[in-house]
Amino acid sequence: TFHILDRDLDEKSFKEFSTKASLAIDTEAMGLMHGRDRLCLVQICDESDNVICIRIERNQKSAPLLKNLLENPSIQKIFHFARFDVAALEVNLDIKVTPIFCTKVASKIGRTYSPRHGLKEVVMELVNVELDKQAQSSDWGAVEDLSAKQLAYAANDVRYLIKAKEKLEHMLKREGRWELTTKCFQCIPVMSELDIYRFGNIFEH
Amino acid sequence: TFHILDRDLDEKSFKEFSTKASLAIDTEAMGLMHGRDRLCLVQICDESDNVICIRIERNQKSAPLLKNLLENPSIQKIFHFARFDVAALEVNLDIKVTPIFCTKVASKIGRTYSPRHGLKEVVMELVNVELDKQAQSSDWGAVEDLSAKQLAYAANDVRYLIKAKEKLEHMLKREGRWELTTKCFQCIPVMSELDIYRFGNIFEH
Ligand SMILES: Nc1ncnc2c1ncn2[C@@H]1O[C@H](COP(=O)(O)O)[C@@H](OP(=O)(O)O)[C@H]1O
Ligand SMILES: Nc1ncnc2c1ncn2[C@@H]1O[C@H](COP(=O)(O)O)[C@@H](OP(=O)(O)O)[C@H]1O
Repeated sequence: TFHILDRDLDEKSFKEFSTKASLAIDTEAMGLMHGRDRLCLVQICDESDNVICIRIERNQKSAPLLKNLLENPSIQKIFHFARFDVAALEVNLDIKVTPIFCTKVASKIGRTYSPRHGLKEVVMELVNVELDKQAQSSDWGAVEDLSAKQLAYAANDVRYLIKAKEKLEHMLKREGRWELTTKCFQCIPVMSELDIYRFGNIFEH
Repeated sequence: TFHILDRDLDEKSFKEFSTKASLAIDTEAMGLMHGRDRLCLVQICDESDNVICIRIERNQKSAPLLKNLLENPSIQKIFHFARFDVAALEVNLDIKVTPIFCTKVASKIGRTYSPRHGLKEVVMELVNVELDKQAQSSDWGAVEDLSAKQLAYAANDVRYLIKAKEKLEHMLKREGRWELTTKCFQCIPVMSELDIYRFGNIFEH
């Protein structure tokens, strides 16, 4: 299924998603700079391919049901490059996402045989689906007026994350890299907070 | 006081240091590459300026009293650029240091008015002491035969860390940056482990 909602989840989707063990999440924004570039869209997908896209209004400061869902400690939230989305959700909607699985971090630790850890490459190799990334850099601020192409892109960006996550987790456990990976996931909110306040990489020499 | 010991702490210094709330720690190695470049010296200093330098032998695999001290959860271990020393202690002596305070990370988060976070600059500004860093790149592997200059360098590298830490902690609390800083300290062992296994910066896009 595929639904578009405004400002927040509705009661029905909130209840449905709240029973899940893990959910795939992605966001679209006006750009990459937190604070300057507002959040426009939040996409959520469960393991049964139910996708919801929530349109966020300019100047919207909260989304109570979404916050409740994303802060629920018993639901794993799967992102690709969580560092960005986690910061965007905090800055725009005061949501502190936990717990986090990041398919990009998992790919970098697990797929050491490849230099390519973009969502397109990860999904191609692990789920055997070729993503069309053409709408990636587009005007997500025109949120009332998104094209069919943009909507398809937004949905596809969350649709294969749970499957990719399962493959990555299996590979990481097989190679004895799972414990390190979970420790890295716990550092992601710290990286997001450093980004929000424009600290550079303070861990480098 | 200043003492040189071989291979490990002795019972006396171990007991003495075990009563402390915080200790300054530094290490010297044959270079910066974990695994290739062995650990040569471990320096420890308490708040009363008692310095101990432990000479580590080539192929030495453990130092039980040092391990006990550095893994003691009630003693804060203060380093400058902890990421490196924590990895070196783990690779060479199987020591997992905790809890950690890093004056370089603290300086980067607190001293945002400065681009310089080397030990020399931090100690100059906060403790008003000018460190002589000439022996920094020297042959620490000649551990039986260290020059007076090397020994003075090794001791001075730990001697001002506790004072610098106090200044930094005060500044960070004043500016509301202390909570973020402690979260960053908790990420340091993860950075060290990523370094040991030669993962690059897996948190970058
Ligand atoms: N410096 C950067 N360059 C490119 N993408 C970045 C980025 N910082 C954050 N991102 C986010 O990371 C995602 C792309 O990851 P990857 O390149 O690994 O596929 C993008 O999400 P979207 O695909 O939802 O737009 C983008 O928003
Ligand atoms: N890439 C790097 N360049 C320089 N110093 C590095 C380094 N990686 C680790 N270090 C360590 O960081 C310390 C220097 O930090 P700073 O430059 O901030 O004063 C050095 O310790 P020593 O001073 O004990 O040799 C050195 O061992």
